[in-house]
Amino acid sequence: MSEVPAWQVYGEADLPLPLAAALAAFVEQGYHGTSVREIAGRAGLSVPGLYHHYPSKQAMLVGLMSASMDELLARSRQAESGAGSSPLARFDAVVRSLLLFHMYRRDQAFLGSTEIRSLEPANRAHYVGRRDEQQRMLDGIVAAGIESGDFDLRHVEDASRAVTSMCVGVAGWYRPDGPLNPAELVEIYLGIARRIVGAAG
Amino acid sequence: MSEVPAWQVYGEADLPLPLAAALAAFVEQGYHGTSVREIAGRAGLSVPGLYHHYPSKQAMLVGLMSASMDELLARSRQAESGAGSSPLARFDAVVRSLLLFHMYRRDQAFLGSTEIRSLEPANRAHYVGRRDEQQRMLDGIVAAGIESGDFDLRHVEDASRAVTSMCVGVAGWYRPDGPLNPAELVEIYLGIARRIVGAAG
Repeated sequence: MSEVPAWQVYGEADLPLPLAAALAAFVEQGYHGTSVREIAGRAGLSVPGLYHHYPSKQAMLVGLMSASMDELLARSRQAESGAGSSPLARFDAVVRSLLLFHMYRRDQAFLGSTEIRSLEPANRAHYVGRRDEQQRMLDGIVAAGIESGDFDLRHVEDASRAVTSMCVGVAGWYRPDGPLNPAELVEIYLGIARRIVGAAG
Repeated sequence: MSEVPAWQVYGEADLPLPLAAALAAFVEQGYHGTSVREIAGRAGLSVPGLYHHYPSKQAMLVGLMSASMDELLARSRQAESGAGSSPLARFDAVVRSLLLFHMYRRDQAFLGSTEIRSLEPANRAHYVGRRDEQQRMLDGIVAAGIESGDFDLRHVEDASRAVTSMCVGVAGWYRPDGPLNPAELVEIYLGIARRIVGAAG
């Protein structure tokens, strides 16, 4: 009987084969350095076969970045809603979720950090809006924690953004075969995040 | 009579024209998405003229990433050595230096975050070694601050890395025409960095 909530459980990312192939290629060579032919080859499809699923390379990038953001937002919302009403418990849950996502979805996180530039304007605006939604979720919790007296800080948005930067940064160096397991790392970085917001205790 | 130390003063990056052209292209399209022909065109040179200065696209990437890391390390060392012996003063100076670099050298910071993958193995090892040198400078100051009683924390390397992630993150959103000027932002983020290391006061 596992009591671990779904937002904490990570398997392999559930991507359609063409998107998995596109992700690997974009992470190695970048969006502009990758041809549709190459993605088709990695996916074991013909170019027309790939176009049957995705009309353009841009559609694959949008598909990948949307799937990542969907997953991050869904996990963060589950984390927050399962934490009850205490701002500290909500903060802990959402920061844990951000940390786990950036440990288990490193390729997606790298794509999200590097290829916003390659989204066409309308796609970019949509993506950035959803990324901001994630940030505002955390901002709201931090503001609630000040209100409740759980947190002690000025500059809500800067502190909240610093917490996010720290979580995103984890994707840049975390390796599954490193010396600390994910649970240990999450506790260490959660402790740092609590300091940033001046959490009591 | 300006008393502002040199490590805090930023003008335009002092890059040779071909490297400036390469930087702009790599930031827009990535290393693998940029041709030597395109860099030559942006620099107003012929392809042979460009090759006269740089034997390969890789040489341009190495030149750019080395110049950035040289600048960051030189500024950080000046900051630290001008701060005297107090760990808190050294911490403040190096964090200020990291923040200013990531505000004034956003393109270089983006390249450093995104194109380590595109360095050939020996070049990559060299670059990562120098990046680690910058991180160890901060680690050493944090450890000294624990020793002296100025800082109160466990997990020196994680806290030090969190501070760096926060500073690096600033490059992702800071805009010179934003509502806060650099000096104000530096003070806010320095305050957050001090919290991360449990600086007294």
